[in-house]
Amino acid sequence: MAVYTEISDDELTAFVAAYDIGHPVSLKGIAEGVENSNYLLQTDRDNYILTIYEKRVSTRDLPFFLGLMDHLAGRGFPCPTPIHGRDGDALRQVAGKPAAIVSFLEGISVRRPTTEHCAPLGTALAAMHLTGADFSTYRANALSVADWRPLHDRTKADADSVEPGLAANIARELDDIERTWPRDLPSGVIHADLFPDNVFFLQDRLSGVIDFYFACNDYYAYDIAVCLNAWCFETDGSFNTTKAKALLAAYRKKRPITPEELEALPILARGAALRFLLTRLYDWFNQVPGALVRPKDPLEYWGKLHFHRGVDGPGAYGLE
Amino acid sequence: MAVYTEISDDELTAFVAAYDIGHPVSLKGIAEGVENSNYLLQTDRDNYILTIYEKRVSTRDLPFFLGLMDHLAGRGFPCPTPIHGRDGDALRQVAGKPAAIVSFLEGISVRRPTTEHCAPLGTALAAMHLTGADFSTYRANALSVADWRPLHDRTKADADSVEPGLAANIARELDDIERTWPRDLPSGVIHADLFPDNVFFLQDRLSGVIDFYFACNDYYAYDIAVCLNAWCFETDGSFNTTKAKALLAAYRKKRPITPEELEALPILARGAALRFLLTRLYDWFNQVPGALVRPKDPLEYWGKLHFHRGVDGPGAYGLE
Repeated sequence: MAVYTEISDDELTAFVAAYDIGHPVSLKGIAEGVENSNYLLQTDRDNYILTIYEKRVSTRDLPFFLGLMDHLAGRGFPCPTPIHGRDGDALRQVAGKPAAIVSFLEGISVRRPTTEHCAPLGTALAAMHLTGADFSTYRANALSVADWRPLHDRTKADADSVEPGLAANIARELDDIERTWPRDLPSGVIHADLFPDNVFFLQDRLSGVIDFYFACNDYYAYDIAVCLNAWCFETDGSFNTTKAKALLAAYRKKRPITPEELEALPILARGAALRFLLTRLYDWFNQVPGALVRPKDPLEYWGKLHFHRGVDGPGAYGLE
Repeated sequence: MAVYTEISDDELTAFVAAYDIGHPVSLKGIAEGVENSNYLLQTDRDNYILTIYEKRVSTRDLPFFLGLMDHLAGRGFPCPTPIHGRDGDALRQVAGKPAAIVSFLEGISVRRPTTEHCAPLGTALAAMHLTGADFSTYRANALSVADWRPLHDRTKADADSVEPGLAANIARELDDIERTWPRDLPSGVIHADLFPDNVFFLQDRLSGVIDFYFACNDYYAYDIAVCLNAWCFETDGSFNTTKAKALLAAYRKKRPITPEELEALPILARGAALRFLLTRLYDWFNQVPGALVRPKDPLEYWGKLHFHRGVDGPGAYGLE
């Protein structure tokens, strides 16, 4: 939830004139997205989302993100389509910052996903993996296993203030995970942040997937692991096998999960939990004044990590 | 700019079902309005604004605000129309708080109003005064001359930290203004907060007036004074007589300004400046954590007050 940059009416008029999308009739800063300023832009033709990229997103990566959305949306995947200016460029500037306009997607994100949401999520995740397979640009995952120790180093001094013993627990996990992290799993473009607030539904139909600003190349099964963590735990911390089964069964119908991927799921899920634990810890200790966001509870992810550590195989996720 | 309350998809569905407005297809928290949580709600029929009233707005006053919008919109004034539920009620509850849905108005507020904006503003202000004249509910102005000394008492200890000598200057102004505040001017329903961010334009046509949550009964000319302060000063602090003249001339075409009102304009403008100086000072020293608002510069209004103190009559506003 953030609006960092304000756009004046004059700037807006000049900016929109570079596109063939009609005249602006409304602009509302929306409280969505942590990294960027987002606006709902209405013109006399249609609705759009205008995003202004703030410091936390690397300008260098923007062509990857926009190119990926172009690629996916062009092949029928329900994600925002970047709108290109009259000169062909999708990545432009407003208020001195990089900016882009994308198509508006209808739908509402669900706060408490049910099993009925997990199946279409699995289908969409597999569809994204398949559709992105021939996207030719490459972006390394900047928050993968090699990046967690540096994050730990920047948070360990304060971690015990969140829960006594947390720093040592994380260090032990890191040792384990670094040692056993799988190699050579099927990989390609993944979303890497497919939380319920990035998925829109209309009734129980999945209508859109948004926020590709962590998308990168990594193991497909890591993306599945991120989703298991984000969609299949109940608010009391318990793991809901029925939801996991629905997610995985729907995924497998579209893209088979290999035996190696299956075998790796518990460690990938532990790693995925550690990744969000560490970034939430970092955000907890580095709150941006005026960021309009309440930091999320890091310990939620320690609980999830703990669950996956106790798992003896992929059967725990409802898989045979 | 504030979104304080989050609404889940379930709460939204149940809430919208109480209205005959179709099914929700999108809900975006918007960064607009300091006192309330505002959402742009799209249904399969139309766009709406959903407002959740937070603590700072008195629940007791809500029927006045909603009734006034009903009254004005029903008579063609371009303000949001409260949408009534199937049971006839416009004021309802969501997430345990009072809430209302109003119609969505197209338009974009201007950051730097020009003379071309001041004329339609004057017309709309007069239209609102005339249209509201037969609105039968009464609400005293909770931020009028009698309320400024208590605000001063709560800010004077810290005021000099903003500018040395400010507390004493305000005290002197208060003495002066309380002593010379006019009596028995024409009065009725006023907006009382008609800043540029509460007025929408499409090109140079005024398309909407929003945010009636300071509306009350008070002198019409006080409302004019608020607008002179909010619309007719340049960013360098200078007063633009051409803008004032445009505003006042357009107003007078619709509703004549009496000689007593004219005479009182300088003191009303000083008072209006003092009101915003004091509330901005108060907000400066009482920032709400998580309020998502940057407090506004109080000294801007000390400069405006100073200008009006030096004025020898309504001629300074471009009036004959």
